[in-house]
Amino acid sequence: MYQLIAPQIISEHACFGGTQRFFRHDSKQIGLSMRFSVFLPPTSSIHKAGGKVPALLLLAGLTCSEETMMVKAGAQKLAAELGMALITSDTSPRDAGLPGEDDSWDFGLGAGFYLDATQQPWANHYRMESYIINELLPTVSNFLPIDAQRIGISGHSMGGHGALTLALRHPDIFKSVSAFAAICAPSQCDWGRKAFTGYLGDDINAWAAHDATALMKASKAAPFPGGILLDQGLADKFFTQQQLLPELFEAACASAGQVLTLRRHAGYDHGYYFIASFMADHLRHHAAQLQAV
Amino acid sequence: MYQLIAPQIISEHACFGGTQRFFRHDSKQIGLSMRFSVFLPPTSSIHKAGGKVPALLLLAGLTCSEETMMVKAGAQKLAAELGMALITSDTSPRDAGLPGEDDSWDFGLGAGFYLDATQQPWANHYRMESYIINELLPTVSNFLPIDAQRIGISGHSMGGHGALTLALRHPDIFKSVSAFAAICAPSQCDWGRKAFTGYLGDDINAWAAHDATALMKASKAAPFPGGILLDQGLADKFFTQQQLLPELFEAACASAGQVLTLRRHAGYDHGYYFIASFMADHLRHHAAQLQAV
Repeated sequence: MYQLIAPQIISEHACFGGTQRFFRHDSKQIGLSMRFSVFLPPTSSIHKAGGKVPALLLLAGLTCSEETMMVKAGAQKLAAELGMALITSDTSPRDAGLPGEDDSWDFGLGAGFYLDATQQPWANHYRMESYIINELLPTVSNFLPIDAQRIGISGHSMGGHGALTLALRHPDIFKSVSAFAAICAPSQCDWGRKAFTGYLGDDINAWAAHDATALMKASKAAPFPGGILLDQGLADKFFTQQQLLPELFEAACASAGQVLTLRRHAGYDHGYYFIASFMADHLRHHAAQLQAV
Repeated sequence: MYQLIAPQIISEHACFGGTQRFFRHDSKQIGLSMRFSVFLPPTSSIHKAGGKVPALLLLAGLTCSEETMMVKAGAQKLAAELGMALITSDTSPRDAGLPGEDDSWDFGLGAGFYLDATQQPWANHYRMESYIINELLPTVSNFLPIDAQRIGISGHSMGGHGALTLALRHPDIFKSVSAFAAICAPSQCDWGRKAFTGYLGDDINAWAAHDATALMKASKAAPFPGGILLDQGLADKFFTQQQLLPELFEAACASAGQVLTLRRHAGYDHGYYFIASFMADHLRHHAAQLQAV
């Protein structure tokens, strides 16, 4: 592990008795400045004597940033009550200045897909997996009162893909996992094929290592004994357009013996009113497992 | 009362078992198309057999729109549990196309101050008070299952000014009132003097009718026997800069015999993390009074 650099606080806001902070730091993994945000509950040692708190990493979807979940998901109130920190990252590098970077809303800027690109020109900076695993999480647990042994992961849409795949690729780091309207089988939907082709190349064998359904199918035993929680709105147009494919992940979990609670919600769409409506269930799902670690 | 026109639904989202709707309508009071939003709780008759529900009108601050409170304030969860609708308006006309309309962030677009301008070129379109009182509220109670006899009002910053002044000017319409970091004495702060000069002219005698502190001072009896709730963060830079002046409103309430619960919160700033942190107390304040009507 290289030397971690203390992140710089951009802004700080009192929030439900805790503290909402926005940070920037020079990322070695990305090679650029990155932004992230942390909510620390009132039980954390910046507020009163106490130990480190568990934390939930919340990954946002296409076009979003480190602000989106903190502003729109309404997670802080219950996180404060449960004594759990929240962590958000950005959804891609910023300011890489690559040709075509902002041509699409579903590839490049705001669409890093939480993986390390192997293809040029993306491979130098688009390294969101290494950034989160080897830099962001070590940074927050080193410089803030966050317990590295009690980290859960969740996310929405592209961030749901990130949550499921990062959890399956790093079960030593993430002790609990859930997702909202996740891209569950990116190798089999338009969003995923576009992103994987661009970041990973044409060899579809390389895609399976970043596809939650393929990873789960390849699991020899249930990787998350505490169960996985997945919420899906049935009025979600991206679900209807077969971009999300939770049924494929459901089948893969069944074949691996992984307990999955897949809830299909009539009337709910893809947006943050849906996420906020069920956020409390996710926070409780994570808190129960993280407190049991 | 002229004929009310049914508003057009722009979008609709399931939310905490209720429904979040965004509307547009051609406003006769403003002379332009206006947008607004309504959250209907699961107890409303669009969801199940039932009567009309009480509602809280939430007015946003400078630069905001009808979306801001619905996206950032985290009010829907408890409103759903309390069986209360939420209503938001925009903060000014849009598309009036007046010279200088978008020169400032604190005057013109996004800064209508919830009053009817008397000065040109503003007087034709900048009529937010008449719009809210004579058009928006009649529209939502006519076309949606909202009880016109059980309407409360709250708001933030410029919207807190709107909440206090509209409640004091229309106590027959608003049965409960609260505010967050309100501009409490606009005649005595820079924001208010700029807005009142532009919209109402140089005669400061005309200002008192739109100044919460002046209106309260002129009250012969406590206009809100149920009490007024006002929250103020002590790390709010606009409070420090004397733009909000809650202490003047507090003194005016004392002289009028009006019960005011003014809470000063150490560490909290002017933003939505502050609003969200105390929203539940406001919703309960309104629910208790609206249910007693």
